[in-house]
Amino acid sequence: MALVVQKYGGSSLESAERIKRVAERIVETRKAGHDVVVVCSAMGDTTDELTDLAKRVCPVPPERELDMLLTAGERISNALVAMAISSLGARARSFSGSQAGVITDSTHGKARIIDVTPGRVRQALDEGNIVLVAGFQGVSQDTKDITTLGRGGSDTTAVALAAALNADVCEIYTDVDGVFTADPRIVPNAQRLDAITYEEMLEMASAGAKVLMLRCVEYARRYEVPIHVRSSYSNKPGTTVSGSMEALPVEQAMITGVAHDRSEAKITVTNVPDHPGEAAQIFRVVADAEIDIDMVVQNVSHAATGRTDITFTLPKADGPRGVAALERQREKIGFDQVLYDDHVGKVSLIGAGMRSHPGVTATFCEALARAGVNIEIISTSEIRISVICRDTQLDDAVRALHDAFDLGSEEQAVVYAGTGR
Amino acid sequence: MALVVQKYGGSSLESAERIKRVAERIVETRKAGHDVVVVCSAMGDTTDELTDLAKRVCPVPPERELDMLLTAGERISNALVAMAISSLGARARSFSGSQAGVITDSTHGKARIIDVTPGRVRQALDEGNIVLVAGFQGVSQDTKDITTLGRGGSDTTAVALAAALNADVCEIYTDVDGVFTADPRIVPNAQRLDAITYEEMLEMASAGAKVLMLRCVEYARRYEVPIHVRSSYSNKPGTTVSGSMEALPVEQAMITGVAHDRSEAKITVTNVPDHPGEAAQIFRVVADAEIDIDMVVQNVSHAATGRTDITFTLPKADGPRGVAALERQREKIGFDQVLYDDHVGKVSLIGAGMRSHPGVTATFCEALARAGVNIEIISTSEIRISVICRDTQLDDAVRALHDAFDLGSEEQAVVYAGTGR
Repeated sequence: MALVVQKYGGSSLESAERIKRVAERIVETRKAGHDVVVVCSAMGDTTDELTDLAKRVCPVPPERELDMLLTAGERISNALVAMAISSLGARARSFSGSQAGVITDSTHGKARIIDVTPGRVRQALDEGNIVLVAGFQGVSQDTKDITTLGRGGSDTTAVALAAALNADVCEIYTDVDGVFTADPRIVPNAQRLDAITYEEMLEMASAGAKVLMLRCVEYARRYEVPIHVRSSYSNKPGTTVSGSMEALPVEQAMITGVAHDRSEAKITVTNVPDHPGEAAQIFRVVADAEIDIDMVVQNVSHAATGRTDITFTLPKADGPRGVAALERQREKIGFDQVLYDDHVGKVSLIGAGMRSHPGVTATFCEALARAGVNIEIISTSEIRISVICRDTQLDDAVRALHDAFDLGSEEQAVVYAGTGR
Repeated sequence: MALVVQKYGGSSLESAERIKRVAERIVETRKAGHDVVVVCSAMGDTTDELTDLAKRVCPVPPERELDMLLTAGERISNALVAMAISSLGARARSFSGSQAGVITDSTHGKARIIDVTPGRVRQALDEGNIVLVAGFQGVSQDTKDITTLGRGGSDTTAVALAAALNADVCEIYTDVDGVFTADPRIVPNAQRLDAITYEEMLEMASAGAKVLMLRCVEYARRYEVPIHVRSSYSNKPGTTVSGSMEALPVEQAMITGVAHDRSEAKITVTNVPDHPGEAAQIFRVVADAEIDIDMVVQNVSHAATGRTDITFTLPKADGPRGVAALERQREKIGFDQVLYDDHVGKVSLIGAGMRSHPGVTATFCEALARAGVNIEIISTSEIRISVICRDTQLDDAVRALHDAFDLGSEEQAVVYAGTGR
């Protein structure tokens, strides 16, 4: 008998009909002899609807109250799934994040989990119940106020509970069949991966693969919780995320996959005085605006002027704020212009084997060149190569790399609409 | 500076627009220099919608989970009102019933408040906040599960908080201008009462006046919390519920008003053996089915047979169950038939002065006789006379009594649509 934590996303719970299907799957797992803890996201568009309602009564809602409001969504889906389970004759008990012992810091809207004390969950399991826990939410250690965990929060709730309960596996049910070598909507012959290490999954997630959020994978790696990504709509085997890259045989797992990201923009600051500390000043301005920078490139200095251009990428959503923050410091830092470009895309190749196989970068660049894709920025880590290109060429770039590294399968991937939280 | 508890019903909160209006009223009260605690019902039809959703996933939802589900409604409205207040520049903090210290027993769906420990509410007030508390909900002392208080629960929350905080007044905002001498939809010249005692209000509520629920008035009387019933849509003076009947001058407040009730049905059990204990057996059967009996009449025994008929009234909703329970005991008790009649109505006259003024009953019966209303059952308390008649004659009966006791005013009452929880 294993202890299984299952997480279901909003699209898997968007109607009474889907909730009943999810309940059937949960009860099957229980009947197979396992203890089951289930983490639910809010139904379908509930979170968006509540956010809209908030904006109609208050243009900038206080974050504490927004958290109180939004957490109602997961309580609703959670209780409904519990009811659906009990109508199938099994016993279920639902708990809010707070009741389940999900303790966070006080950063409303994107709280971090500090501790999980699942005493009531454990007791309810011991009494023979299937336990439901509202995802995405916790309670602040200091203020005792209700908090939310931000994007991907329900996945993080599931992994954190799995860690605290020492579960055998954390199953994340979503609207795709698992982790793929590339987005099947772009690359029709993309292959589902049976298994992937935490490190590779982290690189995939940070490079734009949306199936799992970065935080959730970081949490799983730290506590060594195996994650099993599966489809809510099929019984296909999915993808297991577990284990360390160090344990992989060197000759295996050459390349994991190709990820892409349309959410970044590019800022170029021109004619920056090229002496020590100038670049630091620019990045301090951006950091003070609480904007995360991804990739950075500094051109060779113009010999004649002793000046240079600095280019970096940042989330599109933060673009206007970043530009404004820099413009305010133009005179002080002494640069010419802030150029903003949000028609860029990022494509990345990820693979644990990359570190021991020379020539990957060459093959990578050749493939893009053949596809007519111009590289605007390039950056590499031990197991990843990423480049920025025109957004209109991004799909071509993904396909070119997927082909060049022979990642395709014979079988065509199944694509579903919609995404969960 | 006073401490004011205000309660707003669901129809006052049914849209973003109405929530903003409610927020304005709350902020006005605060600006007038008072500490304000606000109890909100769920928005408009939220509770019905959630109940429907529950029935679609589970025909008979477990009560614990139903409470978890339904309490989301008040959390939503509560947080939204807090946001609307803060957009007006005032400070607000919302709390769930549990956070506000509303401790109940474990009877899901109709929990009773055991204690209120409003430490966090008091602290938030002391810090200068307007405090919002989700109505209708609490937390079980024994199981720590979320409970709901049943019909009229938000009113009870408000009165209980007012008692625990030693508030100066508990204002109940609703869709009528106050307590009237009769339902203005039936009696156009019904008069708003400026003041009414707890005892009279209890009799009015138990006789079918819907403006306040019985439990809420009982709670207010026990803790001597003055209730002020007012309209959410106007600044009219409303009705104050406070004080004891004993304190009233005898010559005043002869008759308070006329209440009516369409929610009861009548059961007649025929040819019951007329010896001691037979009636008791019948009422035991009904009590064992957890059905509340209201009025009872036992006919004079037929001299020839030594048998009698027993008639009583009960909630229509419990009618079929009551009939079935009796049918199962027919042989054992030895009666002929169970007759069921749900085409009855109840009209009641309430007045503290009644006890010291003879002739009220005579005037009462004469008025009904003149209106052609046949009395089927009559029962009286110290300050109330109630009769059962045909439901088709109920409105005539209400008008006849209202006229006979000169309760009308010159002014026509204003009637709004909808009711709150």
